[in-house]
Amino acid sequence: MTEIWKSVRALLFDVFGTVVDWRGSIIREGASLAPELGLEIDWAAFADAWRGRYQPAMERVRSGARAWATLDVLHRENLCDTLAEFGISHLSEAQIDKLNLLWHRLAPWPDSVAGLTVLKRDFIIAAQSNGNVALMVDMAKAAGLPWDVILGAEVVGHYKPQPQAYLRAVEMLGLSPGQCMMVAAHNDDLAAARDCGLRTAFVCRPTEHGPEQSIDLTAEQDWDVTADSLVDLADRLA
Amino acid sequence: MTEIWKSVRALLFDVFGTVVDWRGSIIREGASLAPELGLEIDWAAFADAWRGRYQPAMERVRSGARAWATLDVLHRENLCDTLAEFGISHLSEAQIDKLNLLWHRLAPWPDSVAGLTVLKRDFIIAAQSNGNVALMVDMAKAAGLPWDVILGAEVVGHYKPQPQAYLRAVEMLGLSPGQCMMVAAHNDDLAAARDCGLRTAFVCRPTEHGPEQSIDLTAEQDWDVTADSLVDLADRLA
Repeated sequence: MTEIWKSVRALLFDVFGTVVDWRGSIIREGASLAPELGLEIDWAAFADAWRGRYQPAMERVRSGARAWATLDVLHRENLCDTLAEFGISHLSEAQIDKLNLLWHRLAPWPDSVAGLTVLKRDFIIAAQSNGNVALMVDMAKAAGLPWDVILGAEVVGHYKPQPQAYLRAVEMLGLSPGQCMMVAAHNDDLAAARDCGLRTAFVCRPTEHGPEQSIDLTAEQDWDVTADSLVDLADRLA
Repeated sequence: MTEIWKSVRALLFDVFGTVVDWRGSIIREGASLAPELGLEIDWAAFADAWRGRYQPAMERVRSGARAWATLDVLHRENLCDTLAEFGISHLSEAQIDKLNLLWHRLAPWPDSVAGLTVLKRDFIIAAQSNGNVALMVDMAKAAGLPWDVILGAEVVGHYKPQPQAYLRAVEMLGLSPGQCMMVAAHNDDLAAARDCGLRTAFVCRPTEHGPEQSIDLTAEQDWDVTADSLVDLADRLA
């Protein structure tokens, strides 16, 4: 193990996009629910529109404009707005709930389970997502993600990239920031973690946003590690 | 699976005494550290005295007499008081820290890992301990406890048996109380969980407090399940 990260004891993982393929999963699972729900829509456009409301919804919590709400709650509000945007008004509350739970069953990238399994031997592997606990637990059970601990927004009481999100997670692990490494496919997440003193690993996920992706295609800072999969990350930290 | 608990989706585990043998571990590990620390004491008496300060320390937090403090903090304060009680004053702060970390490495009962591994196939298995996150994570890594999620006092912000400790855990799992079963070797823990609407499983641990144990030797209410090990519990819930 190279000098710079030999003091790292815990890896904190971003999940949406870094560990699981949210867009491909919403497209695939949405299309498979479509006949039963009587939906004829462009699921790629729908996934992008739904996810497009993600940061603005969290920003209202981060800014204090609204009280704490879990991501399940925000996702559902965003889903209702997206359905309205697509001119869909015939779904029952139970059908909307069912669609909202697609986020609990997102599929991992092909390398995620293998990479996490190896990394878990030498490190504490923590989910440090903006997703709430129930979402993360259900996803881990369905996908076989072997987390040691689920931290993240609901546990630490702050949405990334607020500094408290990272610092409270570090504190709960009983570690110092330099003993923790944030692993993410997003340069802005890593920049915020680095500002808090954490080590950083960039995992390139060039199709998270589909074939036309234009952001996060490369490491925009000299992150401590850059990898193209979680298996590659495990090799680089071995 | 029998009628009464077929709606259960998550098992919430008490940990100290139910899953791990805290007393045997403190005696064994304390004795092994003794030469290096220059300690000549009766480790069984020391373990009992240290643990005897556990409920009173938490009660000061539960009652609001003091602000929130993690169990690592309470354990260390209790350790200092116990050392004074035993007339020991020569340890350095680092040596006291080392003793305090014995709680992070408690050994599981012989059936615990096997039982949890089977139960994890059909249920969400959650640590719902008064121990803090770092303590539970370190213990799980050392002992191989395959938790799906670590909840408990630090995550929910309340020490058992306060109702909020159970109800907040249930809420974070996105479940109803009746979909959760508290698993504990302690009748009082189960009584508090039942009062909150949770299902209950008593696991008899007749030597948790040593050969002279006089409490929690039998189920004191008609708990939904009574078992004599976690493997037995898995059989009964199969």
